[in-house]
This record gives sequence, C-alpha cells and structure tokens, in this order.
Amino acid sequence: MKPQITLSATLKSISAILWLFILISSKPVTGQNTVKGTKATAALVVETIIKNTGAAPIPNTVDVFKEGNPETTVTGIVSCMFATMDVLKQAVSKNCNLIITHEPVYYNHLDETSQLQNDSVFLEKRRYINDHKLIIWRFHDYIHSMKPDGVLSGMITKLGWKQYAANDQLDRFIFPETTLKSFVEKLKKTFPQNPFYIVGNPEMKLTKVYLAPGAPGGGSHIQLLEDKNVDVLITGESPQWETYEYARDATSQGRKKAVIFLGHIPSEESGMVFCSQWLKTFIKDIPVYFISCGPSYWAY
Amino acid sequence: MKPQITLSATLKSISAILWLFILISSKPVTGQNTVKGTKATAALVVETIIKNTGAAPIPNTVDVFKEGNPETTVTGIVSCMFATMDVLKQAVSKNCNLIITHEPVYYNHLDETSQLQNDSVFLEKRRYINDHKLIIWRFHDYIHSMKPDGVLSGMITKLGWKQYAANDQLDRFIFPETTLKSFVEKLKKTFPQNPFYIVGNPEMKLTKVYLAPGAPGGGSHIQLLEDKNVDVLITGESPQWETYEYARDATSQGRKKAVIFLGHIPSEESGMVFCSQWLKTFIKDIPVYFISCGPSYWAY
Repeated sequence: MKPQITLSATLKSISAILWLFILISSKPVTGQNTVKGTKATAALVVETIIKNTGAAPIPNTVDVFKEGNPETTVTGIVSCMFATMDVLKQAVSKNCNLIITHEPVYYNHLDETSQLQNDSVFLEKRRYINDHKLIIWRFHDYIHSMKPDGVLSGMITKLGWKQYAANDQLDRFIFPETTLKSFVEKLKKTFPQNPFYIVGNPEMKLTKVYLAPGAPGGGSHIQLLEDKNVDVLITGESPQWETYEYARDATSQGRKKAVIFLGHIPSEESGMVFCSQWLKTFIKDIPVYFISCGPSYWAY
Repeated sequence: MKPQITLSATLKSISAILWLFILISSKPVTGQNTVKGTKATAALVVETIIKNTGAAPIPNTVDVFKEGNPETTVTGIVSCMFATMDVLKQAVSKNCNLIITHEPVYYNHLDETSQLQNDSVFLEKRRYINDHKLIIWRFHDYIHSMKPDGVLSGMITKLGWKQYAANDQLDRFIFPETTLKSFVEKLKKTFPQNPFYIVGNPEMKLTKVYLAPGAPGGGSHIQLLEDKNVDVLITGESPQWETYEYARDATSQGRKKAVIFLGHIPSEESGMVFCSQWLKTFIKDIPVYFISCGPSYWAY
C-alpha cells in the first residue's frame, strides 16, 4: 500500500515533533535545575548536582555521602580535590558544612574504614567532622561522566590549551612540533611545585598529546600509548611496574612514545575549580568556594 | 608404675637424637644444595634456588617461568630488577640465557598478556626473547620469604645500615636523633639519581625507621605508620590517594610521622645484587651476573 499524506497524519507528525522537543528540553542539562533560597538540604543540593551533570545513573558509584546527615541544611559549599584536615578546617572557618571532594576521605578508593577503627589519625579526623557537623559527598564518577569531563574542562582552562584541542571530549591535542624536553619545560611553568616523573627520550619530536588525568590504570595507559595518534600521554600517576616499564621498553625499541606523570593532584585539582564555578550557575543563594588541598609531598 | 632407666631405653634415646640431628641437617638451607657442572637445566637451577631460600612452598606464587623452555641448558645467569629490553640485550651479549627478574616482564603483576596480543611493544619484546632462546623466571615471592628477606639483605648492604638494625628481620632501625630534612639529605647520597617524594615535616625529629621496599600497598603502609615504634617509613611507591594522604593528615594532626618514597626500583634493586652474590655460593660452574635496569624515569 502506497503511503498517503493526510491532514490527520500531518497533525500527528507535528504533535510527535512537539513531544520530542519537549522530551529533549526536559532532559536535565547544566543550568536547568537550580537550587534557590538558603534552606536547601545537602540531599537536595547533591540530587540537583547529579541531575545537572546530565549523566545516566551510575551503578555502584563511589559518589555517595561519606559523612554527615544529608538532611542538614547547607550553610555553604566547599569543592576540593582531597578533604584533608586542613581543607576541613578552612571550610569550617568559612562557615561551610557541605564538602564536595573528588577523592576519598579515608585513604582508599572505597573509603572502607573497618580496618581503621583503632587508628588515631582516622579517629581524630572523624571526630573533627562530627564535632563540626560536616557533610561530605564524593564527586568523582559523575563529574568524569559530564560531556566534556568536568575535570578535563577545568584542566584545559588551567593549561590554556583550548586552541590545541583536537576533539570535543577535550582529551586529545595537536601542538606545533616540539621536543619532549621543550614541551616539559613549558608545562613546568603551569605546575612549578614538584618535579614530574617522565619516561621518554628528551629529544623526541612530538605533536600529538593525550591528557588522562588521575590514575586510570596501567591497562588504560597502555591502550592509549598503542594509539598511533598519541605521541605523549600526560597523566597523574601509575604503578611503576606498569605504565613506566611499558613506556621504557617502547622508547628502547625506538618508538616515538613518552609519558609525563604530573602527580595525581596537579593532574586533576583544577577540575574542582571548574566544579565550584559550575555549581554557582545553578546554586543561587548558598556560598560556594574552591579550596586547594595543595601537594601532599615535597621532593628532594 | 615408676619409670625405670634401662640400657635399651638409653640406646633408643641416643638413636632418636641421632635421627633428629640427621633430619635437621637435611633441611634445605642456604648453600647446602649446589649446582655443579655446566650441564644444568633452567628447571634444575630454579628448583635449587627455591630449595636454598628455605621457604615453604608458596601457593599461587608469581615466581614461575614467564618465557622459554625450562629444560634448556643454562649458559649463564642474569639477576635483575626488571627484564627491560636493554637488560635482555646485555644478557645476550654476556652469553646468558637464564634471566632471573624480581618484577614482571609484561607491565602487570601477573604478566597477563591476553590484552597485549596486538601490541607492538609486547610483540617485539617477545620476539627478541624467542629469537635468542632466553628463559625468564620471576624471583619475587621466594626472595621476600627468605629470612631475612633477600631484598632487605641487599638494601641494608647498599645503605650501610647493619649497625642501626633493631631486629633480625632487618626492617627496623634506630638512628641517633636527627631531623627528617637531615636524614633525607644523607639518604640522597645513596640514591642521587631522581628526587624522592616525601610526606612529613622537614623539621620533625626522628630515631625509628621502618624499611618496606617496593609497593606493599596503602593498607600495609598505614598499619606500619600506626606503630608507635615507627617515626619514618621508607618505601618504594604507593597510590597517592592512600599512604600520601594518610601521612599528610597525620602530619596536620601534629603527629611525628613521615614517609619517604624512594621510587620502586631504588627501593629494591640492590636485592637483586644480593641475589647474584648469593647464587654464586651454590651455583658453581655457571657464570652469574647482576645487571642494573636503572631508573625508568627522569625528573623535571
């Protein structure tokens, strides 16, 4: 049967298009869900943040409340890379009770504390948190699920690399040809505090850079280095028997491959600067601050 | 009934003591099982090494043949920290076909290679090993099970710390009181190549040092730092969200705790120098060499 265009069918089509438009518009995207007023609970703030990431629900996410009562009214928000003792104290001095941290509070990825029940460092930290009625929520999986990844958005701003971006994900970059040594010297100006660890020939020529902040693991690093469109991988950290040795063997074999390990915090902390700025676009009447945890180590 | 001492009972006791003596004497200990002549297979050499460690069999050990045919006659032995491309080439130039490596060959703890079947770095390394009929055996779990741990034995010699040892395991040391900064400055002379990463107050006074080479994990590190008899932990590496952040919080709380991360290779490589010297005590007619893999990274 040959299809016929009738008035009824046309109206149905228009109706369907309108519905589709309404459906797309109602999908949570940045800035559409806002928190107004000063009476919002931590639970509402966090629910709104997750909606605004636009990410699908993540099963078994580590992005849960780590401490405190989510039904508490939020007096102020701190975005940070690590909720160190010092960051917690600064938050209290700014009258903020909701701490949004990218990384764990208690020294392991899942914040398991059963093994720390007699540990005096843990007990003192938890006592401080409870005494000051702080609420801590981790913002890790969802910020990485934003499009583009919120951590990359922050890092690209810090690095000033927008003009070199080769894709919308903001993880691939094309630079004018330079040597690894010159590239590292320039990069150092952005992260002056502690030395990077670098695997690769300093005289190697490069143009194609991949940015993988944090610690995605040796397996991921190796997959990225296998890619002919990656000369240099920039990352946070890796076990030294994984990415380091792969990159060393690649270099020994004469391949044009290198890895720059910035350190975990330098490679991601600007993502939480982005976070604080982004929160302000939809959290209207509660103060939001970024607090830097700074480097955990010094070098000698 | 009152026990009576008879001639027969006395002879039986002497006989039992003699048997006990023979039993103890036949227990494999360092130096008692030797490999003589130039016709030994890799399998025999490795069996003898394991016997000489004196360790009980280790279930699911990673200390297995990673490459090559164990029935091959050994022409020479190389002991190394990592069997890098460069170490393999040096071994070939010394006419050695048995490589004894402390760490993995293929960039992950279990030397899983299924994900590397199309990886050109892996394929070139494996081709080199096969073309030169090399045999690679990992010596990790058994050397750490020696009493004292063979890696510690080598490290203590490198460090010159025998006089400061506080136990037979050679992992605890008592030093004349000094500051963390002075201690690190002195330690640097032993490992001049790349900067350490250090968590702790440079002015902290210390006497009690624990040496945990390699990467025993954040959980182990934290247990060691909980110990009131440990001021400073010296180790190879750790994920930066684990030991680093624990030690940072401990320091912020005013505790006398610090961690010095030497890097994985500096923290263990001298164990394989010890290994080469120890092998020579029971492998009599096959050349044995230590080859340094050196650092995988440079710093900037």
